[in-house]
Amino acid sequence: MSDTTGNATPRPTLYLDDLSIGDRFSSAEHALDEQQIMAFAQQFDPQPFHLSESAAKSTMFAGLAASGWHTAAITMRLLVTSGMPLQGGIIGSGGEISWPQPTRASDILHVESEILEITPSRSRPDRGMVKLRSETRNQHGELLQLFVSKLVVSRKPG
Amino acid sequence: MSDTTGNATPRPTLYLDDLSIGDRFSSAEHALDEQQIMAFAQQFDPQPFHLSESAAKSTMFAGLAASGWHTAAITMRLLVTSGMPLQGGIIGSGGEISWPQPTRASDILHVESEILEITPSRSRPDRGMVKLRSETRNQHGELLQLFVSKLVVSRKPG
Repeated sequence: MSDTTGNATPRPTLYLDDLSIGDRFSSAEHALDEQQIMAFAQQFDPQPFHLSESAAKSTMFAGLAASGWHTAAITMRLLVTSGMPLQGGIIGSGGEISWPQPTRASDILHVESEILEITPSRSRPDRGMVKLRSETRNQHGELLQLFVSKLVVSRKPG
Repeated sequence: MSDTTGNATPRPTLYLDDLSIGDRFSSAEHALDEQQIMAFAQQFDPQPFHLSESAAKSTMFAGLAASGWHTAAITMRLLVTSGMPLQGGIIGSGGEISWPQPTRASDILHVESEILEITPSRSRPDRGMVKLRSETRNQHGELLQLFVSKLVVSRKPG
């Protein structure tokens, strides 16, 4: 993988109590290429427009495009490795996802996230829910994926 | 991959005009295992509860669990190879996803889909939108993922 994540510096880990509505997080970058797109598609989404530049030409995509699930998976990697330093990890229960335009082989992806809501759990004092808006954009600033997710986040002990 | 898809029989390909609200589709099965879970996680979701049975024990998942994006990706493979024979392929613009319970290494997944809405495009006579509800369940019938998606589907030419 070609993330530009700086692994040398330990990142802080945030509890629910450390977060505020409007907090923003920016991830490192991930450079895509044809090989990654085709390898993911062969395993999980074997359709012509994800498997071959020539076969993709005559489809609705008019050229090779990454599977939306590939864009989603790369987004998750960027969030986990550089985009959202949550104590206990990034655990989502679901959300709303959309792909406004295809992800292409020449795209360099990064993720910009913003906290929309914070809801401490009534029944479980050790956690809460966070609604997070994550935009996956390429190097031209074009929006490739929007994911508004519900995350389970740990509270500070004691 | 261990899909039980019968690749020998060509499947019919359906246009928007061939679909009705309430139509149901059932996919083949996909057997998961620890190796698949860890391989996906290493590439796209490197968190302890997806990477190692022992590390996962002390987490919210209390044992190894597949990344939700892995469940989503397997669901897509099952839809593409056996679950939804659409002319022109399965092209989604987005949807609402949730993971009611973790996917485990011993799970055998299949997908049950139902058409909820069919909307011919006003501006593009060659296509329409379909709202599809896809339930990913294991061999015990437990719901692992619910995905209500918006698909772009081709209309019959002429």
